[in-house]
Amino acid sequence: MEKFINDDFLLENKYSRALFHDCAEALPLVDFHCHLDPREIAEDKTWDKISQVWLGGDHYKWRTMRTNGIDEKYITGDATDREKFQKFAETMPRMLGNPMYHWCHLELARYFGIDDLLLSGDTAEEVWNRAGEALRRDLSAQKCMLASNVESVCTTDDPTSDLSWHKKIKDSNFPVKVSPTFRPDKAFAIEDQTTYISYLNSLEKASGVEIKSYDDLLNALKRRHDYFHDCGCRVSDYGIPTVWYKNAFYYEIEDTFKKAISSSELIADDEILAFKSALLLECAAMDYDSGWVRQLHIGPMRNNNSIMFEKLGPDSGFDSIGVSNYARSLSLHLDNLNSAGKLGRTILYNVNPADNEMLASMVGNFQNSDCPGKIQMGCAWWFMDSINGIERQLRALSSISLLGRFVGMLTDSRSFLSYARHEYFRRILCNFLGGEMERGVIPRDLELVGECVKNICYNNPKSYFGF
Amino acid sequence: MEKFINDDFLLENKYSRALFHDCAEALPLVDFHCHLDPREIAEDKTWDKISQVWLGGDHYKWRTMRTNGIDEKYITGDATDREKFQKFAETMPRMLGNPMYHWCHLELARYFGIDDLLLSGDTAEEVWNRAGEALRRDLSAQKCMLASNVESVCTTDDPTSDLSWHKKIKDSNFPVKVSPTFRPDKAFAIEDQTTYISYLNSLEKASGVEIKSYDDLLNALKRRHDYFHDCGCRVSDYGIPTVWYKNAFYYEIEDTFKKAISSSELIADDEILAFKSALLLECAAMDYDSGWVRQLHIGPMRNNNSIMFEKLGPDSGFDSIGVSNYARSLSLHLDNLNSAGKLGRTILYNVNPADNEMLASMVGNFQNSDCPGKIQMGCAWWFMDSINGIERQLRALSSISLLGRFVGMLTDSRSFLSYARHEYFRRILCNFLGGEMERGVIPRDLELVGECVKNICYNNPKSYFGF
Amino acid sequence: MEKFINDDFLLENKYSRALFHDCAEALPLVDFHCHLDPREIAEDKTWDKISQVWLGGDHYKWRTMRTNGIDEKYITGDATDREKFQKFAETMPRMLGNPMYHWCHLELARYFGIDDLLLSGDTAEEVWNRAGEALRRDLSAQKCMLASNVESVCTTDDPTSDLSWHKKIKDSNFPVKVSPTFRPDKAFAIEDQTTYISYLNSLEKASGVEIKSYDDLLNALKRRHDYFHDCGCRVSDYGIPTVWYKNAFYYEIEDTFKKAISSSELIADDEILAFKSALLLECAAMDYDSGWVRQLHIGPMRNNNSIMFEKLGPDSGFDSIGVSNYARSLSLHLDNLNSAGKLGRTILYNVNPADNEMLASMVGNFQNSDCPGKIQMGCAWWFMDSINGIERQLRALSSISLLGRFVGMLTDSRSFLSYARHEYFRRILCNFLGGEMERGVIPRDLELVGECVKNICYNNPKSYFGF
Repeated sequence: MEKFINDDFLLENKYSRALFHDCAEALPLVDFHCHLDPREIAEDKTWDKISQVWLGGDHYKWRTMRTNGIDEKYITGDATDREKFQKFAETMPRMLGNPMYHWCHLELARYFGIDDLLLSGDTAEEVWNRAGEALRRDLSAQKCMLASNVESVCTTDDPTSDLSWHKKIKDSNFPVKVSPTFRPDKAFAIEDQTTYISYLNSLEKASGVEIKSYDDLLNALKRRHDYFHDCGCRVSDYGIPTVWYKNAFYYEIEDTFKKAISSSELIADDEILAFKSALLLECAAMDYDSGWVRQLHIGPMRNNNSIMFEKLGPDSGFDSIGVSNYARSLSLHLDNLNSAGKLGRTILYNVNPADNEMLASMVGNFQNSDCPGKIQMGCAWWFMDSINGIERQLRALSSISLLGRFVGMLTDSRSFLSYARHEYFRRILCNFLGGEMERGVIPRDLELVGECVKNICYNNPKSYFGF
Repeated sequence: MEKFINDDFLLENKYSRALFHDCAEALPLVDFHCHLDPREIAEDKTWDKISQVWLGGDHYKWRTMRTNGIDEKYITGDATDREKFQKFAETMPRMLGNPMYHWCHLELARYFGIDDLLLSGDTAEEVWNRAGEALRRDLSAQKCMLASNVESVCTTDDPTSDLSWHKKIKDSNFPVKVSPTFRPDKAFAIEDQTTYISYLNSLEKASGVEIKSYDDLLNALKRRHDYFHDCGCRVSDYGIPTVWYKNAFYYEIEDTFKKAISSSELIADDEILAFKSALLLECAAMDYDSGWVRQLHIGPMRNNNSIMFEKLGPDSGFDSIGVSNYARSLSLHLDNLNSAGKLGRTILYNVNPADNEMLASMVGNFQNSDCPGKIQMGCAWWFMDSINGIERQLRALSSISLLGRFVGMLTDSRSFLSYARHEYFRRILCNFLGGEMERGVIPRDLELVGECVKNICYNNPKSYFGF
Repeated sequence: MEKFINDDFLLENKYSRALFHDCAEALPLVDFHCHLDPREIAEDKTWDKISQVWLGGDHYKWRTMRTNGIDEKYITGDATDREKFQKFAETMPRMLGNPMYHWCHLELARYFGIDDLLLSGDTAEEVWNRAGEALRRDLSAQKCMLASNVESVCTTDDPTSDLSWHKKIKDSNFPVKVSPTFRPDKAFAIEDQTTYISYLNSLEKASGVEIKSYDDLLNALKRRHDYFHDCGCRVSDYGIPTVWYKNAFYYEIEDTFKKAISSSELIADDEILAFKSALLLECAAMDYDSGWVRQLHIGPMRNNNSIMFEKLGPDSGFDSIGVSNYARSLSLHLDNLNSAGKLGRTILYNVNPADNEMLASMVGNFQNSDCPGKIQMGCAWWFMDSINGIERQLRALSSISLLGRFVGMLTDSRSFLSYARHEYFRRILCNFLGGEMERGVIPRDLELVGECVKNICYNNPKSYFGF
């Protein structure tokens, strides 16, 4: 049988193939949002079993295994690595149509040279052995990045981080540019007062600012923002279930904050909303003042399963797509910043595809000559990082906004093998455009369309982020 | 001209055709949710005019006729059967792209042997005559089921039902397994106090429990639940406009219930919500304790047309797709049950396709080793039971969850001819997968994909329901 | 290279081509909703530069330019016409997949005879010159309409308009039927009291009714409604962000109105909602009593950018797709009218495609024998007036309602060149149906499907509107 992952994987016509092979394939990667551990880059981590690099922290895979009825023992429990890998391999044939099926086979092909079989319970032993050999022979964190033609990456970092590993990487001769991203989500989470107070302690230590008021909080964050800037950070990121917007007086926000840190009173939902709304605007202003790109990841509903949250904590595969009407609040949030002269480059990512068209049209309300494509609809993300999700995002974006200014793909991943997702995206993008050429929806002009491909895959993010 | 309903109807490539003809076509049907009248099965109902079996209670057809501007006289009024049939036939050519157009022609082909013409005003007389002959010669309720290769069906029954017809069927030598489904919707409807009290009277009679309190209500339902279990019921079903979730103390629910049955006071919306939320959890616990599969049909907006509701009552074609944000309440509902150790196998059906991705991701939050695919995203339903609706459900499910564990199709129908909808679904499923094979999205491995088809069409529902 | 706009543009198979060329292409246009200025028709406006007719008031184009990072100087500022055209031309290659790219090239081909190049910065000079020549030689408002085979158009007019230009057109020998549309949006806008009072002054003048009460307002509107009727108006239109529905007593509406005109008190959100809800019903009743078709354009979020609103006012390209749950309120609104015997022919347009299926099913709740397809799901509109938007609307409509009764396309445009959008729609419709024929989803019967095409493109709107 033909290879599943062959040269023309997902490329359905001659235009798609020409676009991918001639324009996209060879371009370097600008991976402007990921969750790699900078320490693992600095130390050039190695592995000797595929399960370490595949199953260790990959909650996407854990979910599929649970859905397949696999016992938790084989997922996050005390089964052996080989047993866990076996159970995952047995889940694969149930996954037809899931991007995980593609990612796994792409990774096997690209990093382990295994492209002559499909992973299943029957082939697990062979894959285990061959992948293990490849790992031990040839792979490491840095080698993965170099082999993937990565030019720059942005990790995701808490404001309290000392960024020491980033400094070590910078001081080494590793040629990939590795920058931090300022992600202050914990500074927003006043609803859980105990955890919040303990977080403020860390922030006090990191910033050297004693935090007794909302104003102190802003000062502390600003110090860390400056520190991040000095360490090369040019991007922020906010993970938010919806876009918070509620007018309030400054003294009300102060009151709410003081309640939170005194821990003596419950805070009302409205107060929490007003606090988060205000802080989101303040952080945006800091980002603007520093000339950073701001990212908003909007819409997931996290930690739905209380029992498993108790056992495993966050990011263990119990999150899902939320529904929330943030069209109005997002408009007000952006308009507030715009009116204050503080609306900088911003990327808006929606996790629920029902919001695609709303968002693709929203970005058009606040564009100007500061920068082409200043307000971006971010690429399909998390649950939508699939062929269907990516195609729908591309369709909404191209129909309603300007595809030619899109800054494209990022991995959003914790794994060094996930660069294959850029290849995946590029194939889908080229097939999308090649398909539209074949239909006659866009001109059958490979130069014109090829330029668009190169811009999305490389030139646009490069110039948008200024890397 | 070629036949519209030909062997390869809806099968667009060689993979689709191989999958359908080699893997799906011959499999028996497990129709785990329908609205057939068990009496008609027990008595082996016969008909002598096609209008009886086609137009009698089919509110889908009534809607299309009204949309075509047909007078109600020819729909539910006193026109003759032949006249009504004529008006419906004249509506057919206006229905291009509607699943009704497919269902009708599939039913004409499969049950009446009429596949050489398209139904229209011009061909109505011929179809009327030929179908009438076929009906009188050869068809009956049981013969339809046998000819359709039905292995088991679950009807939909009120807790007050004595299930006597189910017993008669069981005692006969009819080889199809016919089980009831426990559907206690009327026990939730406290907002209409008069109707509610009269329903409680029936429930008192059926259960032998005097119902003076919420606790009594639970006891009465539990008795009927047990009775249904003894009669072979293993499935429950809940038709709900949204997922109700609101915390309340038990005594508050009691108070609300007492207000409802005293009929002297209006009940506030919040109280109604809390009552329904609590009862939905209690019923779920009963289902869990009995080892049943629970189904939630979420989201329709019923009886929108007051004038026609007065005239014709419910289920007459005046329902539509609702919009309601139940992501959070569904999460809390499921989490509450999960934390209490009472979350069993559950199938969640959404009627609004805008919720597809939310739901496909939601099910992943509560999977475990109790059963593969324990929490299911149900198949496309009612207004979405169309090519487009089914394809979108399959795409969301396969991209975000595990298609290989999907329990597939059911008719949800009141008609003995509706088994053609299983064939319709199977063709769409095989064409969907065959299309993905051709695109290279899933491996061109007929054994691998064929296994998936067989599982969805037969093995999965069989083992999931334990029939 | 082949021409982009060729005879078979967007027609992907033989059925599509046959349907378009044999059934759709030659039919006259019934453009039942547009924003043309009747004065420009009456005076038979001419232009000598393409920028006048293309960029002058086209906020769709302005948005794309802003998204491309163009300075406002070149959009609404004081740059020269040639400079503005250059900047727009340079934006074109960034717009792949956007309907603007198609509209522009269709208009260049149809009105300027330019179909041998693609517009870009490089070709701007040539297009500027050739288009200018064509404009000066051959084009005018009336010539555009005649060349486009327009049979009738409905403009959009405020109740205060004296419709003098409509009278002039009627009295001339211009063969196209040009009727006004009653669009009383300003009569609803009580939230901005100052503007509202000034609007009431105009309405008083136009109607001759002194407006001191809500009842006076209704009388004034009714007078203008009658006047419009006498001037040939048979259509109304309402631009609404959501469907307002809230029960209130008549005296409460009176109170709210009096607050509004006294301008001394703030009006609460609930009062505003109740007022708008009531007025929407009253206007609907007027429409019904006059036998008019009523249009509701539902869902945009307008004037999102405060700074630009201050500078440029409304309709300048700062609107976007809103999210609002109006399923229930729309149902209640329609049911209220239906119960009162005042529900006439109604077209419902949604701007957010997430509502497609809800709306396609909603219309089915209120159909009857007054008229085939009495309640219509309107065609894809504004941000959804794209290939994808139109296809999704057609798919929802055909799957859930009756495509054969659809009244089809309108331009909704301010430009005399926008008739090309009818051609665009017809190509997409024919390609949609031809594609379904090729797939076997609808019979490969060109007579049957061709009839459907002719009805949607011409016969249905003609008989629905009674033009």
